[in-house]
Amino acid sequence: MSTPERTIGRISQYRRLVREMKKQGRQGVYSHDLAEMIGGTAAQVRRDLMLLGFAGSSRTGYAVDGLLLRISEFLDAPQGENIALFGVGNLGRALMPFFRSHHQNLRIVASFDTDPLKAGRVIHGCRCYGMEEMEAVIVRERVKVAILAIPAGSAQGVVDRLVATGIRGILNFVPVSLQVPAKVAVENIDMGVALEKVAFLARSIEKDLIGRRGSKT
Amino acid sequence: MSTPERTIGRISQYRRLVREMKKQGRQGVYSHDLAEMIGGTAAQVRRDLMLLGFAGSSRTGYAVDGLLLRISEFLDAPQGENIALFGVGNLGRALMPFFRSHHQNLRIVASFDTDPLKAGRVIHGCRCYGMEEMEAVIVRERVKVAILAIPAGSAQGVVDRLVATGIRGILNFVPVSLQVPAKVAVENIDMGVALEKVAFLARSIEKDLIGRRGSKT
Repeated sequence: MSTPERTIGRISQYRRLVREMKKQGRQGVYSHDLAEMIGGTAAQVRRDLMLLGFAGSSRTGYAVDGLLLRISEFLDAPQGENIALFGVGNLGRALMPFFRSHHQNLRIVASFDTDPLKAGRVIHGCRCYGMEEMEAVIVRERVKVAILAIPAGSAQGVVDRLVATGIRGILNFVPVSLQVPAKVAVENIDMGVALEKVAFLARSIEKDLIGRRGSKT
Repeated sequence: MSTPERTIGRISQYRRLVREMKKQGRQGVYSHDLAEMIGGTAAQVRRDLMLLGFAGSSRTGYAVDGLLLRISEFLDAPQGENIALFGVGNLGRALMPFFRSHHQNLRIVASFDTDPLKAGRVIHGCRCYGMEEMEAVIVRERVKVAILAIPAGSAQGVVDRLVATGIRGILNFVPVSLQVPAKVAVENIDMGVALEKVAFLARSIEKDLIGRRGSKT
């Protein structure tokens, strides 16, 4: 893979930001605008966009429409991507409409759950299968990416089967560390770590402010 | 704030990993184990844990129980943290049981929604309020951290009111860039960016593998 993983994440972020700007009526965007929004430097933004072969003008910035088109050519599969969702509990059920409304190009074409009351049903417009059908459905639907929203205890077992079936990417919402071979990309969304972190930072800021107020009196 | 933000995130990750190891019966853990799991270096792990004033032995590693205790002393508020959830849609409803089961110390004490059918009800064990009650409830419940799972269009307006009411930390699930003053910590969980990234990486891996197979024949 030629493009570093972090760069891919940033390019996807740029697209979201540039789309926001377009909605606000902007036609040009500057590297320092994007840098500020993602907490990076303008030089990094320029390097990333140069990697896409996209150049801006110092006067008008990057052209919004052209940049969006170029990012889509770079990031998106022309025919879209078929994705399978594992776990149709509260979280899984929330993810289906979220991704559908924000990412039409990334289609959840099948979902899986151990609950026999769910298997066979259509949930949020998507057929739910029992776990025993995993391999057959993945091959038939040409799924290469899986979203994991299952209980922690069963995660590694499911992942092992996914890897054996040829899955190449996993978006993991389960708070466990998955073991996968190098030929599988894993992106962890650790909601608990994020909440703990923000709670800690909030407390530090509050202490800081109280301390400063105290020292003034 | 003395501890860098990224370090806080890693320390929270270490705790999750060490808890997993404890469940598996491990009594000691080595810096290189943790490093491998979070994709960092052993030197970084040692630096982070030294920051907690916790030292390991090169023979037996870090003592699992002692390390968990030390991390909790460092990360957790002794009386726990009151948190408010904004948006009781699919995602918000999924977050309540998730955080409750994994993070007893971080309590969602109030939820808010614009839907008049939700306000006044108890949803997932938590009272839901109308948005007009935001300021009163936040002050009364001493909430300093908010989780945002509302529609993108209303996010900045809600954030402005939260900031004015003294919120110090925001866990943001809304795919927009929020404007907040420096005295407020924001942690963004960008699920769409994560899915786009993993889909891109999966495709790159697949192309790579096909390319290699091709070149062998």
